Amino acid sequence: MWRVITACNGSAVLEQPEFALFEKHRATLERAALACRERHCWSPFPEMPAKYPDSAAAQAAGLAAFQAHLGTRFALEQPGTMGELGEEVSPYSQAPLGIRYPRADPDALFDAAAHAIPAWSQAHASVRLGVLLEALDVLYREHLFEIAQAVMHTAGQSFNMAYAGSGVNALDRGIEALVYAQQAMQAVAPRARWERRFGAAQIVLDKTYRLVPRGVAVCFTCASFPTWNAWPSMLASLATGNAVIVKPHPATVLPMAISVRVFRRVLAAAGFDPNLVTLAVDSVEAPLGKILVKHPKTAIVDFTGSVRFGRWVEENAQPALCFTETAGCNTVVLESADDLDAALRSLATTLCMFSAQMCTSPQNVYVPAAGVRTPEGTVPFDAVAQRLADAVAALTGDPKKAAMILATLQSPQSQALLREMSEAGRRDGTVLLESRPYPHPEFPEARTATPLLIRCTTAERHLYGEERFGPVSFVIRCADAADALFQATRDVKEFGGLTAFLYSTDESYIAAAEAAYATAGAQLTINLTGPMPLNFAAAYSDYHVTGLNPAGNASLTDLGFVAGRFRIAQSRRPAKMEPAAATTLPH
Amino acid sequence: MWRVITACNGSAVLEQPEFALFEKHRATLERAALACRERHCWSPFPEMPAKYPDSAAAQAAGLAAFQAHLGTRFALEQPGTMGELGEEVSPYSQAPLGIRYPRADPDALFDAAAHAIPAWSQAHASVRLGVLLEALDVLYREHLFEIAQAVMHTAGQSFNMAYAGSGVNALDRGIEALVYAQQAMQAVAPRARWERRFGAAQIVLDKTYRLVPRGVAVCFTCASFPTWNAWPSMLASLATGNAVIVKPHPATVLPMAISVRVFRRVLAAAGFDPNLVTLAVDSVEAPLGKILVKHPKTAIVDFTGSVRFGRWVEENAQPALCFTETAGCNTVVLESADDLDAALRSLATTLCMFSAQMCTSPQNVYVPAAGVRTPEGTVPFDAVAQRLADAVAALTGDPKKAAMILATLQSPQSQALLREMSEAGRRDGTVLLESRPYPHPEFPEARTATPLLIRCTTAERHLYGEERFGPVSFVIRCADAADALFQATRDVKEFGGLTAFLYSTDESYIAAAEAAYATAGAQLTINLTGPMPLNFAAAYSDYHVTGLNPAGNASLTDLGFVAGRFRIAQSRRPAKMEPAAATTLPH
Repeated sequence: MWRVITACNGSAVLEQPEFALFEKHRATLERAALACRERHCWSPFPEMPAKYPDSAAAQAAGLAAFQAHLGTRFALEQPGTMGELGEEVSPYSQAPLGIRYPRADPDALFDAAAHAIPAWSQAHASVRLGVLLEALDVLYREHLFEIAQAVMHTAGQSFNMAYAGSGVNALDRGIEALVYAQQAMQAVAPRARWERRFGAAQIVLDKTYRLVPRGVAVCFTCASFPTWNAWPSMLASLATGNAVIVKPHPATVLPMAISVRVFRRVLAAAGFDPNLVTLAVDSVEAPLGKILVKHPKTAIVDFTGSVRFGRWVEENAQPALCFTETAGCNTVVLESADDLDAALRSLATTLCMFSAQMCTSPQNVYVPAAGVRTPEGTVPFDAVAQRLADAVAALTGDPKKAAMILATLQSPQSQALLREMSEAGRRDGTVLLESRPYPHPEFPEARTATPLLIRCTTAERHLYGEERFGPVSFVIRCADAADALFQATRDVKEFGGLTAFLYSTDESYIAAAEAAYATAGAQLTINLTGPMPLNFAAAYSDYHVTGLNPAGNASLTDLGFVAGRFRIAQSRRPAKMEPAAATTLPH
Repeated sequence: MWRVITACNGSAVLEQPEFALFEKHRATLERAALACRERHCWSPFPEMPAKYPDSAAAQAAGLAAFQAHLGTRFALEQPGTMGELGEEVSPYSQAPLGIRYPRADPDALFDAAAHAIPAWSQAHASVRLGVLLEALDVLYREHLFEIAQAVMHTAGQSFNMAYAGSGVNALDRGIEALVYAQQAMQAVAPRARWERRFGAAQIVLDKTYRLVPRGVAVCFTCASFPTWNAWPSMLASLATGNAVIVKPHPATVLPMAISVRVFRRVLAAAGFDPNLVTLAVDSVEAPLGKILVKHPKTAIVDFTGSVRFGRWVEENAQPALCFTETAGCNTVVLESADDLDAALRSLATTLCMFSAQMCTSPQNVYVPAAGVRTPEGTVPFDAVAQRLADAVAALTGDPKKAAMILATLQSPQSQALLREMSEAGRRDGTVLLESRPYPHPEFPEARTATPLLIRCTTAERHLYGEERFGPVSFVIRCADAADALFQATRDVKEFGGLTAFLYSTDESYIAAAEAAYATAGAQLTINLTGPMPLNFAAAYSDYHVTGLNPAGNASLTDLGFVAGRFRIAQSRRPAKMEPAAATTLPH
């Protein structure tokens, strides 16, 4: 069926043409697997837009490609199209993008996806991996700046974040998912010879183990970070032989529409049915989400989005497998610091980053009532709160700097939330910093807001005891250091939390916090200062979400994220007593 | 924290006393891992009772230990005991065993389990693996024949099956679960150093990755095969740091009570809290199942048992992880055969084995209306059905032979089912073989029945379209060979099915059947004749259940069975710029 030759480095090389894409990208996948194993820093992509090959031309081409979409019908030759729809509005211009997407009949998408699965799932796993790595490579080489512009004008991210967080870092997360998919599939022997004596007879069986996909996966993508969870979820499902229907948030369709079209093109070019990847666009008025989750052909659901709908998905996806990432109260504990100003500067930066619209953005800052110990003495609680407010104000005072860091508000709902929380803060606590729009230097119509910072006590848990999506945070007075840690980790366990941040010079306190946050299930960053955003999550190294609290049930990326997406079917029969086949290619 | 030295074979040896049990059993685990990787035949245990060390004495001691339980209170020093209960009846004597077990307050068990978890989960994974391998070894060395007797007199298995299927093979499945647990845990690096430039600064972080258990697992064990699924489920949860509450079927408590006591003793001897493993006995009248599944502290549910309650568990376990194995219509397709008599003999044996009370027992035999092609010509449908009935009758005519193979009926409900199905068979089809009690040569009061065999057509799907638990099977006339395969695989997909059996001399038909059964999700055995029971499932080699149809959502044992039972929590902090620690012991 295939011929395996051994390269000079000892690795098997697959010579058949269907393995060409795998061979093309194999070094990348092997290097990524090493990074996943050792969790060190690595990426095949340049970190900054300026380092992209022929960057200026590529950026200009990406912008032009994005602009060419505006006011047009997005061509996607997929089945079941019945009219068109599209309601995206740029947070930068607050004007509609005017892009019209096919409105799809869900049944037609499921039927087409189910029809496409057999040939795809029966291909060798390496063939699938090769095609998917090629799709990521095409996204990188041909569409990265187009997607970055699309992310800016839907999610509202800054250009740099759109390039990094929604571009190369998301591609890295995709490769990472492929590493784990390969690992899980290679753990299954493709065949075996089994011999045992039963009474007087020697029974010799040849066994074949097939990887069987679950079926059709539905991948929900969110408004503020469309690609970051979506690409790895799609790749985890596709690599293991499933098909994927992508259901983007209606506010942020374009980045996923471009992605879907790339996957379809690359699949078709490799001889597979492009209907393995389709797009199901809906509207806020007529959402498709519940229909897709409850569809009898839905075998896997990946969901990124709101806590409320995420919980509904978790409760209703069965019998489909369900992987969720929602949100929570990300917590900060300020106990003591060698350099409090450096800590507060880092914290302020991270509170401002993309107007705190990241699932990893901190929200609740827990401080002992007695204040924070420093080498210069204890800084009282009120002073800590004020210095944090000052640090935020310093970052957002200059519109150019503010634009780079705050970017825009994805949704008008966040403006309403800011008004509501400001009022609640004045009523039940103290507003340290009012939110106000800031003038964006490039986009005068941009939907912007500086952060709202509220001071309160643990008696005002109703204020901070849920995710307040947008630039709202709370400095919370706790009884003492032990109470700060107790409150923070209890809130994580109860309300969810992905990330956590701790400043302490006390190693025993740090050890207690590591244990408490591990149990609560938030990924903890300790005493980090300097230019790295506190909530920066590195592909191949940082696990994203633990699955231990309400912020999500899955982790990007561990074996559990991929191992259940395929199943193992075996057949066995008496061996024809010839020597075993020479090929021992794993899955 | 630990010292690693390198043995002459290059593997690290863990010198600290807490690793002593791991070192004691490490060779077994490594050998088992090789078997899982290559799927060949291997076991550390003797296949037959006679090969057990000092077998006669061990068997006598096991019998004596079993008899000593009768009519007594089973001592189990676990928390929350409030009275006692026990309603087991031996299928061999039809007399109550008279064993009284502690009735436990579920809340007390959950609280004790939750309290026991931290120290257990914070131990090194190898420490846990060592303790659990020791527990399996103690079960093997000290309790195997006691458990075999307990299985006989609760589940009703024959002595040989109780030894093999509920003894050594179940221990093998337990070791197998430990192999995959180790593999999933070792895929996570324990720590890493991560360096990246941000602007002008070089950020160097030391990262720690902790394995965090889900919490308290509830393990339901079934009446007819108590240990086989239970031990691997318990071990998968325990190895990954969780605690387990065992909820045995009220008819079959003793094998699990003995198991629980062994785990508790070994855990305590190793310095861990024995409440990591507790027993929750209930009664048919006042079942605890739903209370345990819906308990807020339940984090994992393993369920083996009826289709009906299994479906309820799958639908209601959320947010707990849920692994089920229930039952289904295991199918046989008879298309053509080189030696039809040999095929029918094997089939008859497997239909009789433990009175078809195994989840892998075949039930539905699909035959083309035109009959089965053989080298001597086509044998007509009616003749095939009659020859199968004759083969079954030949096996069950001699009480001594019948006792060895049929054993007993676990439940009186099966007798009622046999009466009901016999009537339905006479009404809607043809009864080829009536069921009747056979006189057990050793136990005159034994609850016995020879198999009921019914002939029908695909129009009588209401007869065979669900699992009929007990010795009932159907020879089903199908339009032709294609229809036989279509009907069989459709029934598997719709009603569930773990195993499937095919006889065909047509390679293209075999290939079609392999593909169709892989999609339907039944593990297929092709053209097997001779002394090996067709439904024999070899640990380390045969995957049990695919998770692709209603017969269960989990597979023993793949990575998906263990990978979700723990989660990964990380912490990261600026590195103290010393050389990295010399120890690189994996999880």
